[in-house]
Amino acid sequence: MNPLISPAEATTKITNQLVTSLSEKKHLSHAHGRVLASDILADRDAPPFNRVMMDGICINTYNHKLGSWRYKIIGTQAAGAEKMILPKGEFAIEVMTGATLPTDANCIIPIEKIDIQDGYALPHDGIDAEDNQHIHPIGSDCKSGDILIATGTTLAANELATAASNGATQVQVTRLPRIHLITTGDEVIDPSHTPSDFQIRRSHPTAIRSLIEAEHLGTISDEHLRDDPETIKQTIQNTLNNPEINVLILTGGISMGKFDWVAPLLKQQLGEPEFHGVAQKPGKPFAFWTNKKNNAAKQPNQNHTLIFALPGNPVSVTATMHRYILPALRRILGKTEIPNKLPLAEEFHWNLPLTGILPYKIKDGKITIHPPRNSGDYISLQGTNGFVEIPPHSILKPGDYLPTY
Amino acid sequence: MNPLISPAEATTKITNQLVTSLSEKKHLSHAHGRVLASDILADRDAPPFNRVMMDGICINTYNHKLGSWRYKIIGTQAAGAEKMILPKGEFAIEVMTGATLPTDANCIIPIEKIDIQDGYALPHDGIDAEDNQHIHPIGSDCKSGDILIATGTTLAANELATAASNGATQVQVTRLPRIHLITTGDEVIDPSHTPSDFQIRRSHPTAIRSLIEAEHLGTISDEHLRDDPETIKQTIQNTLNNPEINVLILTGGISMGKFDWVAPLLKQQLGEPEFHGVAQKPGKPFAFWTNKKNNAAKQPNQNHTLIFALPGNPVSVTATMHRYILPALRRILGKTEIPNKLPLAEEFHWNLPLTGILPYKIKDGKITIHPPRNSGDYISLQGTNGFVEIPPHSILKPGDYLPTY
Repeated sequence: MNPLISPAEATTKITNQLVTSLSEKKHLSHAHGRVLASDILADRDAPPFNRVMMDGICINTYNHKLGSWRYKIIGTQAAGAEKMILPKGEFAIEVMTGATLPTDANCIIPIEKIDIQDGYALPHDGIDAEDNQHIHPIGSDCKSGDILIATGTTLAANELATAASNGATQVQVTRLPRIHLITTGDEVIDPSHTPSDFQIRRSHPTAIRSLIEAEHLGTISDEHLRDDPETIKQTIQNTLNNPEINVLILTGGISMGKFDWVAPLLKQQLGEPEFHGVAQKPGKPFAFWTNKKNNAAKQPNQNHTLIFALPGNPVSVTATMHRYILPALRRILGKTEIPNKLPLAEEFHWNLPLTGILPYKIKDGKITIHPPRNSGDYISLQGTNGFVEIPPHSILKPGDYLPTY
Repeated sequence: MNPLISPAEATTKITNQLVTSLSEKKHLSHAHGRVLASDILADRDAPPFNRVMMDGICINTYNHKLGSWRYKIIGTQAAGAEKMILPKGEFAIEVMTGATLPTDANCIIPIEKIDIQDGYALPHDGIDAEDNQHIHPIGSDCKSGDILIATGTTLAANELATAASNGATQVQVTRLPRIHLITTGDEVIDPSHTPSDFQIRRSHPTAIRSLIEAEHLGTISDEHLRDDPETIKQTIQNTLNNPEINVLILTGGISMGKFDWVAPLLKQQLGEPEFHGVAQKPGKPFAFWTNKKNNAAKQPNQNHTLIFALPGNPVSVTATMHRYILPALRRILGKTEIPNKLPLAEEFHWNLPLTGILPYKIKDGKITIHPPRNSGDYISLQGTNGFVEIPPHSILKPGDYLPTY
């Protein structure tokens, strides 16, 4: 490892290498969770007409002001029907929620507040009849040409429905980066096989795939390699030569063990890393390289492969994913992300000279820190909601805010 | 509408009709977001062996206590290799992170803290050499047969990886309820068409599908009907006769308008509702029926169709989905859900005699309420994170906790 750098320095070194992904068109039905790559503009005013907001009658209050309190009903304005005209005088038109307001009407009186007798509407005594009452005025939500949804927005129910109601059935979203995961380790076997006493089942791809796919941060392929330098070297080379792969994640082989081939082989192929070694626990041996692609012309804003080399144990893998790699993928996708911080529920002491990246649970808007007993298993992470960053040597009080990842 | 009931009463009436879904087997790669239907037990101790946690050498401290501080290295214990035996005397074995601890060793000294010369390991002066140092003891995370993941847990990265490392590549999860959505309204056209001045584009299916699919709460189909009583009647009947459909959601046609056919037709077919009318804003006309299925024998715990009839405007639809229907679906799926509440960032006054179901935004663990100007458009909901429930006539202070949905 090189001299240790801080998590903030590591973040800067990663961020400096990130560019926003190119974009592609997607139908709304396949756009949930994707990030908008160009603004969606209003194609007409919203609402597009003076919209009736209650079932009842429409009148013109200027007539009412003339003294009359009894209206001859001359027709029904249904939702989805052409706009009618309210004649001058003591007339009313029955109106339905969602209908366009008839021309020359300016007030809705709800059905609950009138009696209807012999074709006349008789409003109850003492009710309100104001200008614009129960009318949702044309263009009051937005004007044609307004930005409805801004570039960088992650599309969820409200945004997708807004797009649909605006006719934007195809939306321009950023492309998902393609990620390749290489796990290493002679002790690791396929989850469907029965391990010997000294073996463990492979679980990183399940965790990493779930983290990435749950948030629509990329597409991912994976393979496992034994601790054999020739195979590892060849596979890294093949991956780096593949112009389709934007991000390479490796787990294991980057510490000081006799069979830790990953870091030396990456150094051999790519030269010195952007960094190798972060003053944090867990995940101290975390390393990062980039590789200029030969085919820069093909994908002008994707001409790097980002290479993240993670320690091999589950808690380090998960902490590093949350703290560095998921935020990097969000940035590649162009997400306009607001960093989150949350208040501590309980006092917490951290005695190490390293930054802590520790799992937390959230309840009622406050977090409690759950340091795993060790880094060796995913069991200790169950029920936790993410990771929190804790400065070296810190005594934290209830209510102190911590950045969450 | 019937006499209004409170949101709490409406919730109880819905909850009384809910039963947990049957279960099905899924491969881990398709189980993200699904709810576990039977406990996953540990198939062996975890860790399954005394696991080496650092690269270095292993020794036996009882030898050390005899006075020697120099160990002859007699071999290498790699991860994934059969367990070696440490002979009695001043011997050491090189060990790699993740390896099984050699028999009769009880302490790891990290590589950084020794020198190696002529086949001997020489620990630096003053370092620790304790019993169990840097060893993750067999069975210390869990014992064979322990419950690793409990029924009712929603499966995400940590749980799926725990299952994988335990060999549970197929997991038993609850079946997704099948939902059918019927939207109504003559003013509504397909999003890909160009509306006339008095028409609006159809957006509810986009919003509702996104809400349900994002959280893996069901599978959904949908259709749109004009305000024609014969068509609406026939379609409701067909849906209720379909034994595969567990939940029917309708939007529009349940208020007091002349063309509000949905509620009268549901009453005609199903009798009096469980409720029709909730003392809330928005969503006051919200109604709920159940229908006993004919084929109770086929799906013994799914013999009801739940029928939710929602007002037709976007904010009411979204508020009702968040406050009632998404929680009902979570319960059908067997989620062991903890109700959430969050503190207010700012004072908020609510002057109506109805419960408010209002959108909020969350920042740093605190919420601000964003009452939409009207119920007519999804635009006003953009960037909000969910809905909060506010008691009638309430003056809320910063720090007050409100239930969130």
